[in-house]
Amino acid sequence: MKDQTIIESPDLQNALAQAVESTPHDRLFLLADSNVEQCVFPLITDFLDRFNPIRIILPPGEEYKNLSSLSDVWEALADGGASRKSLLINLGGGVITDLGGFAAACFKRGISFINAPTTLLAAVDAAVGGKTGVDLNGLKNEIGAFAPAKTVILSTQPFSTLPDNQMTSGFAEIVKMAMIASPKVFSSLLVAADHGRIDLRSKDFPLSDLLSFAVNEKARIVKMDPHEDGLRKILNFGHTCGHAFETLLLRRQKPVTHGEAVAHGILVALILSNLRLKADSMVIYQYHRLILRPLFSRLPLNCDDIDEIVDLMRHDKKNTDGKISFILLNGIGHPVVSSDTPEADIHAALDIYFDMVNS
Amino acid sequence: MKDQTIIESPDLQNALAQAVESTPHDRLFLLADSNVEQCVFPLITDFLDRFNPIRIILPPGEEYKNLSSLSDVWEALADGGASRKSLLINLGGGVITDLGGFAAACFKRGISFINAPTTLLAAVDAAVGGKTGVDLNGLKNEIGAFAPAKTVILSTQPFSTLPDNQMTSGFAEIVKMAMIASPKVFSSLLVAADHGRIDLRSKDFPLSDLLSFAVNEKARIVKMDPHEDGLRKILNFGHTCGHAFETLLLRRQKPVTHGEAVAHGILVALILSNLRLKADSMVIYQYHRLILRPLFSRLPLNCDDIDEIVDLMRHDKKNTDGKISFILLNGIGHPVVSSDTPEADIHAALDIYFDMVNS
Repeated sequence: MKDQTIIESPDLQNALAQAVESTPHDRLFLLADSNVEQCVFPLITDFLDRFNPIRIILPPGEEYKNLSSLSDVWEALADGGASRKSLLINLGGGVITDLGGFAAACFKRGISFINAPTTLLAAVDAAVGGKTGVDLNGLKNEIGAFAPAKTVILSTQPFSTLPDNQMTSGFAEIVKMAMIASPKVFSSLLVAADHGRIDLRSKDFPLSDLLSFAVNEKARIVKMDPHEDGLRKILNFGHTCGHAFETLLLRRQKPVTHGEAVAHGILVALILSNLRLKADSMVIYQYHRLILRPLFSRLPLNCDDIDEIVDLMRHDKKNTDGKISFILLNGIGHPVVSSDTPEADIHAALDIYFDMVNS
Repeated sequence: MKDQTIIESPDLQNALAQAVESTPHDRLFLLADSNVEQCVFPLITDFLDRFNPIRIILPPGEEYKNLSSLSDVWEALADGGASRKSLLINLGGGVITDLGGFAAACFKRGISFINAPTTLLAAVDAAVGGKTGVDLNGLKNEIGAFAPAKTVILSTQPFSTLPDNQMTSGFAEIVKMAMIASPKVFSSLLVAADHGRIDLRSKDFPLSDLLSFAVNEKARIVKMDPHEDGLRKILNFGHTCGHAFETLLLRRQKPVTHGEAVAHGILVALILSNLRLKADSMVIYQYHRLILRPLFSRLPLNCDDIDEIVDLMRHDKKNTDGKISFILLNGIGHPVVSSDTPEADIHAALDIYFDMVNS
């Protein structure tokens, strides 16, 4: 995979200008949704005036991450006279960066694009790494490509427009990265939490530094395994069960954010790590007491849901032949792939999890 | 780009079985159009009975190489329970291999596919090399990806079902490859032509050998330059003007085959090579007398069309900034990229071309 340039700046429009100027192009396009148009465009009026990109605006929401929107973007690019040397900026959350990245990857077999995430989750999770795609009949990212953005912009400026649960959703992915990659960063999070200093909106909280850590760490892992043949799977820590929680609650029309689901999935993975690998149980209690309970709500689930949760894991597209793959931790910073995890152990871990969170 | 396996066999269904058996997969899908279903399926009944692929049938024709058909294929894959480990066979002409390859390249971010071309043109031109795609609002291959088939099957067996003009269309691409890559093969073609022995349907004509030469040569070139950054451009020999002829005649509702247009485009490129590079003029007359005139019809165009032809070249997606790129020959086997060809020379070459073909 080609290297991605990461521009970190508190000033979104300066970063956008820098990214656009360093990418030779003929025409410039800007993809966003109408929420971003309303909330974020006012932050970048100088940029818009100066570069005057051709704007493509989609309705907001995951339900528009589909082939119809994709076709609209392609037609807008063609109508706007896009050539192989045109440049697309994806300004928005994960729906916009995923869909826009895929649109760019396939337009004339690939034009360059810049990801400018406007949510913490998209910044940590979606903007870097080259996974792009759209949903098909409700199946997430069923259609897509591996295509890295030429430049990714990391600016916390647009996050000021986000609701609280969107902030914690992104934070869960930062915690995940600390746990799989850095005992030092994870310790610093525990210390901050223990002193009641995790306030994602506070100027004293080093959110930019943590974001930078998580994104650069992800870029490093992805570079070693761009197509998820092996190492990259460790990024799924917390996601096996997290995805099942997310899907089940969406199905029951009680949706939670991706990060909330992952934050709970992490606890299940830690319990399972103790059961399967005899990993130190201390981290389970630290994570639960200092991170999960203070920052994330309980999920409206209980031990009667275990069979349904395991069933969803079995049918996850990442699992094949009915085998359930988990990322476990043999201590902080030491992820281990468990590609065929016994269902009895998963049941046991979920039992313990529900005992912990619902007591 | 990953290596492509090429299986050459006179027996299509044995080759298909071999390709399928050497690619581990869970479910097997077969994409074809209704013409292929009618004409080629009867040749492979044993294969169909034995492997029982889930069949996806599209209506025939370039007008169905669009997003709507693509979406139908993706839904059929999803409905058929395709996973990341499923396998798609594209059995058909260039529309099927291009569209099916793109569908496979993006389904769950990429599943394996086998190209089994049923036309000579698709075998020479489309099946190998990884260019996949669909048209968008009449613009050819506007949406697509670079994605190589895992295996390409070369079998002349299904060509028996083709009309004559489809055979000569594919043959033009073989002649092109001989001219850019092999003085020896080109000489053998001239000798055969001089003795009236170019009969594409004759058992004595070495069509399989020529097909094998052209495809392996293309695979070699593509391997060195998978994304058409440089060397691969030489495959466009004859295509700058060929595409303009093809587009103009389609617009005038007098469509010609791709190969017919390219065969004429080659003559223009040879004349231009003489004007620009002082290349030996002998090859112009040999090509015209022995290949073009006996095997390909005249095009319904004349020197009054030159301005319109040049205009189409200027707007070809392969040309940028109004510069017209030509592949010229500094002798057989010595292609040269002329990335900014003076329009006066193109006019002059077209004038000479019309004098030659219409006299």
